[in-house]
Amino acid sequence: MASLLRAATWGMFPWRGYCSRGTQGKLSEGFVEALKAVVGSPHVSIAAAVREQHGHDESMHRCQPPDAVVWPQNVEQVSRLAALCYGQGRRLCQPDPHGPNPGAESGRLLCGGGARRHPQSPQHPPARQRPLVPYPGADASLCGMVATGASGTNAVRYGTMRDNVLNLEVVLPGGRLLHSAGPGRHFRKSAAGYNLTGLFVGSEGTLGLITAATLRLHPAPEATVAATCAFPSVQAAVDSTVHILQAAVPVARIEFLDDVMMDACNRHSKLNCCVAPTLFLEFHGSEQALAEQVQRTEEIIRHNGGSHFSWAKEAEERSRLWAARHNAWYAALALRPGCKGYSTDVCVPISRLPEILVQTKEDLQASGLTGTIVGHVGDGNFHCILVVDPEDHEELLRVKDFAEQLVRRALALHGTCTGEHGIGLGKRQLLQEEVGTVGIETMRQLKATLDPRGLMNPGKVL
Amino acid sequence: MASLLRAATWGMFPWRGYCSRGTQGKLSEGFVEALKAVVGSPHVSIAAAVREQHGHDESMHRCQPPDAVVWPQNVEQVSRLAALCYGQGRRLCQPDPHGPNPGAESGRLLCGGGARRHPQSPQHPPARQRPLVPYPGADASLCGMVATGASGTNAVRYGTMRDNVLNLEVVLPGGRLLHSAGPGRHFRKSAAGYNLTGLFVGSEGTLGLITAATLRLHPAPEATVAATCAFPSVQAAVDSTVHILQAAVPVARIEFLDDVMMDACNRHSKLNCCVAPTLFLEFHGSEQALAEQVQRTEEIIRHNGGSHFSWAKEAEERSRLWAARHNAWYAALALRPGCKGYSTDVCVPISRLPEILVQTKEDLQASGLTGTIVGHVGDGNFHCILVVDPEDHEELLRVKDFAEQLVRRALALHGTCTGEHGIGLGKRQLLQEEVGTVGIETMRQLKATLDPRGLMNPGKVL
Repeated sequence: MASLLRAATWGMFPWRGYCSRGTQGKLSEGFVEALKAVVGSPHVSIAAAVREQHGHDESMHRCQPPDAVVWPQNVEQVSRLAALCYGQGRRLCQPDPHGPNPGAESGRLLCGGGARRHPQSPQHPPARQRPLVPYPGADASLCGMVATGASGTNAVRYGTMRDNVLNLEVVLPGGRLLHSAGPGRHFRKSAAGYNLTGLFVGSEGTLGLITAATLRLHPAPEATVAATCAFPSVQAAVDSTVHILQAAVPVARIEFLDDVMMDACNRHSKLNCCVAPTLFLEFHGSEQALAEQVQRTEEIIRHNGGSHFSWAKEAEERSRLWAARHNAWYAALALRPGCKGYSTDVCVPISRLPEILVQTKEDLQASGLTGTIVGHVGDGNFHCILVVDPEDHEELLRVKDFAEQLVRRALALHGTCTGEHGIGLGKRQLLQEEVGTVGIETMRQLKATLDPRGLMNPGKVL
Repeated sequence: MASLLRAATWGMFPWRGYCSRGTQGKLSEGFVEALKAVVGSPHVSIAAAVREQHGHDESMHRCQPPDAVVWPQNVEQVSRLAALCYGQGRRLCQPDPHGPNPGAESGRLLCGGGARRHPQSPQHPPARQRPLVPYPGADASLCGMVATGASGTNAVRYGTMRDNVLNLEVVLPGGRLLHSAGPGRHFRKSAAGYNLTGLFVGSEGTLGLITAATLRLHPAPEATVAATCAFPSVQAAVDSTVHILQAAVPVARIEFLDDVMMDACNRHSKLNCCVAPTLFLEFHGSEQALAEQVQRTEEIIRHNGGSHFSWAKEAEERSRLWAARHNAWYAALALRPGCKGYSTDVCVPISRLPEILVQTKEDLQASGLTGTIVGHVGDGNFHCILVVDPEDHEELLRVKDFAEQLVRRALALHGTCTGEHGIGLGKRQLLQEEVGTVGIETMRQLKATLDPRGLMNPGKVL
């Protein structure tokens, strides 16, 4: 594991926010004036077109647009907005953590109105210092990724957001400002009191608004090499993954794409890869360490029948490869133009990954649905991207059934219904099955304590 | 970072527990009978000698012995005990997480009576699978280490308890059983609801009783090499640490011992090392990877004036070296027979470590106190072990002043008052300074929610 030497903090300004009726009926003119008094007239909009623009996301969940959109300029304004909304019973919502990222488990958009944050620009750190962790899908913001407990392709080596957040600046429901590890602190470890940082990471905006995040920085690797490799079967690809991890090869990324996904990527991203179950890999280290990692990995992969190695050492080649991986969502959508996508997100213990992936592939083929499989297999996490006609209710039901059956299989294998997309609206029932009655009740107690009026991203998670 | 392939769960039975008067005055005979009805007569004791035996720890805080000692045999009994005590307003306390470990920030023993758990036998996993993380000082139990959010010498590579706990079985104050990640689950990552696991790790028994922990297992390394190396100054040793981490050498352990500590270790553990600021190092990996790590480290250390390398490749040699490191507490105590030890525990950002360590060494020399410095410098965490005559109140005051000044310096450098020992009784005021008013109030809200009667390890942390 690359060592922590530095940390850096990113604020989330400028951003858009949404504000709406909440429990008190439609926004009054007076309330809109009060919003303007906080952020300035040009930074509040109640225009129908603006509200509509912010009233949907990539998910298939239908939501109401907000009643107002606001653009606070600094944390003091967020604090005053929160106090104003909370005092008057107006709902406040979680940002859409993944921006336009596919696969967000929806429901991060407002339902029943609410205020939603959305950074205008993705807050990417400088390349040499980038926290390798939260390599975002699409244009996710860092604070949004914190709110979902997101991860990404290099979590297998560098951990997820849960592992890499050192401190958070949070505006609590009533408007008070919390620094989860104390103001300005960024130590590597601590045993000082309850882990407030950990409580807010992944809380999906239901406990407070995250306005700044301090993350671990990992040194950029001395050298990097990426590769793709084709396999005769899903089993062979996933077995290889398990063996590579068992051999303690410190792989930086290991991603699985099934044959349908590879076909779609070839067409969408103009690759020329085998149409077969495939692993995308990346290694970080010194030149000498890389040579050893590559050699061990090749041995394991050949032993499992892998072939068609394609090594990418230059930055440009690697970028092309990973761009194809990161565009997998759009490549899948292109299989049925005009349709919408839905992504599953189960995660299981690595030892159970081969059986669930092989079974899921068989089920997908038998289902008659259009779908691909793509996964962060080094974490035991994978997605089925199902492409569905949103007007075809019978097909929507089949997608729902397929997704629920997959989650229940994952739960039976000691897994989770969501590795990185969150609960949102869509998985509230599944969360109950996963954590049990006492778990859900404990979560409800925490929610009621920190958000007693239930105005923060209402209806989400619980 | 070694990859997660397996997880394992350790329960904490058999264990001892303490139970006492709580808010209702002295234990009634009827209550003692009720305890016996839960765990069986042979598993309850109110004998003075037994209570006294469990009424003190290695810290300098003075506590009352419990009113009763109980030995529950399984989690159902713990649950019934918790329900019984909670229903009748009897206090329940946190175990002594470090067993006889030096440096525990005290206060994990009962004050004002209470029930305290203490596993009879340290629950060490099998050697080949041992989670390299929580390499315990002395005889700490795994569940106790979870309760403190402990770490140890190999946290620099494998993380602390916070990073490695996948699931907890917790008996909540009223006796209900919580599985923090859902019953039986042990996935590598999740975005499913609030992070209850993270909330209980480090809660020092103030929110519930941890009865089982599921931890990540890291593969045992293919090869291991350890080393010691002497430096001309504290600055040179700590600079080397920073440079090794900056070079992304995946060091498995990197421990600093000052000259006084080395002198004490030489005598206590019959070593023959230089009496100088020293680093103890360990590297894990393949033979080839080790060679590269060792070479890079030697270059850095020589550049900083290090000398007297002593490499230990065989298991026996390494064990001898690390046994000396782990016995540092007793080596320090042996400097003044009959005296007691007090350990500080600050942790700062790695970039601020050289300045605080150099300054602390100067302060220690100027103080006239008997003290050594030993630290998990790869994490930015170090301890001053101060050896003090417990009957000399003037000296005790000077120790207290020295420790508080050190914490305030650490806080000023964005650090924490405790890297791994916890808050206990001794650092409650410092916790407030560290996390601020909103942080403390948020912690108090969480405590009041989960333990509304305030009976769990009362008086600790907050």
